[in-house]
Amino acid sequence: MATLIDGLAISEAIRNEVKAGVAELKASRGITPGLATVLVGDDPASATYVRSKHKACAEVGITSFGHVLPATATQAEVLALVNELALQPEVHGILVQVPLPDHINEETVLNAVPLSKDVDGFNPANLGVLGVKGSKPAFAPCTPQGCIELLDRSGVKISGKRAVVLGRSTIVGLPVAMMLLARDATVTICHSRTVDLASVTRQADILIAAIGKPLFVKADMVKPGAAIIDVGTNRIADATRKSGARLVGDVDFDAVKEIASAITPVPGGVGPMTIAMLLKNTLLAASRTS
Amino acid sequence: MATLIDGLAISEAIRNEVKAGVAELKASRGITPGLATVLVGDDPASATYVRSKHKACAEVGITSFGHVLPATATQAEVLALVNELALQPEVHGILVQVPLPDHINEETVLNAVPLSKDVDGFNPANLGVLGVKGSKPAFAPCTPQGCIELLDRSGVKISGKRAVVLGRSTIVGLPVAMMLLARDATVTICHSRTVDLASVTRQADILIAAIGKPLFVKADMVKPGAAIIDVGTNRIADATRKSGARLVGDVDFDAVKEIASAITPVPGGVGPMTIAMLLKNTLLAASRTS
Repeated sequence: MATLIDGLAISEAIRNEVKAGVAELKASRGITPGLATVLVGDDPASATYVRSKHKACAEVGITSFGHVLPATATQAEVLALVNELALQPEVHGILVQVPLPDHINEETVLNAVPLSKDVDGFNPANLGVLGVKGSKPAFAPCTPQGCIELLDRSGVKISGKRAVVLGRSTIVGLPVAMMLLARDATVTICHSRTVDLASVTRQADILIAAIGKPLFVKADMVKPGAAIIDVGTNRIADATRKSGARLVGDVDFDAVKEIASAITPVPGGVGPMTIAMLLKNTLLAASRTS
Repeated sequence: MATLIDGLAISEAIRNEVKAGVAELKASRGITPGLATVLVGDDPASATYVRSKHKACAEVGITSFGHVLPATATQAEVLALVNELALQPEVHGILVQVPLPDHINEETVLNAVPLSKDVDGFNPANLGVLGVKGSKPAFAPCTPQGCIELLDRSGVKISGKRAVVLGRSTIVGLPVAMMLLARDATVTICHSRTVDLASVTRQADILIAAIGKPLFVKADMVKPGAAIIDVGTNRIADATRKSGARLVGDVDFDAVKEIASAITPVPGGVGPMTIAMLLKNTLLAASRTS
């Protein structure tokens, strides 16, 4: 039976470290880290995400600057805001909440965030650099960085291990593969076109599931003793819940936990790590200010 | 016994295609593709490489502009030249011959080449983008692109295959892995820290060797029927040669050819492809001129 990798407890530990770092930066250099958020439109889920980021900032002493534009804002207006934030010295990190409304080119807006304030680590220019041993990307993207932290803080060795990443998105799959490679894992990237997927995933000492298919990874796809990081967050129907639904990962947790050596739950695994990494990146951005 | 993947013949075919494309671009739009080379110092090997690139340009109708600076040139002087070439409309591609003298920061100089003229495809901002299906990097780097062309033009299917890349350099290993991934291979990246390497390479339907170790890949590391691309170019002692040395790849060609389905020789495999891809990228750069 696997050890539970407790993302809530680990993210709490990281938030406390960030809190101490923020206090230290204020005391030693008089700098208060600042995060600006840009929310376009009134999607309730996006508004909730942004609120939880502001709350997390407040808890560790990071100032947050919330900017909201109407759903009718033009691309030029959004770009003008991002460009203005890029110049403000009290803003060390800029977070543009995605998705943006359809009439706005997301890539153009995200690329307007200067690398030095890209605390989300979304800039594609970072992606390849992540795979280079000893290189220094501006910021590692939050969710992939969260996966690595979960492994590190659970005592899972990465160097020399076979790591299999299921999914090749630019948000999770590709960057986490690059980060595992830079840490000397032997890395295989699988995807929807992989033939005989189970035979590949069964070779993984470390398996990262990031494909967005509920309960996709079954016990017979997992090597006994493997460490499993489940990035999936899928809502499935559940008549026993008052809401009629529940969240599950990409991994069939109940079956896989019987043979893995360590596994993240959903919720409470990778999820809480993403905001913790955003806070960590914002502190890092502020500490780099000259 | 494996089919020989003939890089000389394939590169010749590509050069002829580029030649036709250059003629077409001249006739239809009055544009003659131009490649500027920057050589710093008098390293004889570098001078030879640059000369062979000029000769290849001439053969297909690309104008080349050779710039030579003394080994004592300052970094500022090299940067000034690159910045000047970046502005010249008749220069569509800029090739900075590496290595540069020790007192010059190679990364700084290479990053000064604008993406639109980076026909070598060395800019690290390209690296991650190469792995994204359907994405359009400015230019694919020449040697990795040459590997893919060799597979394509030898009828080796990539989609759905297990590809193993031996080596993780930013020049070959990483980009070729990303390009194979974008073509729907299931890709594993191995390196010096990989444990039980032979068990990994034996799973490869397509094996790319790019580690710079002479004759390293032995027959027992290869799956019967695999396609082998050997990027290595290593000089080893050979008393039977007048020069006392000969070139060999990273693959033990004589043994591996007995079990592979297709294999590149060294020399005459990947080597000739690199310049052919440089010509192809230069034509592409010129054709993008508005």
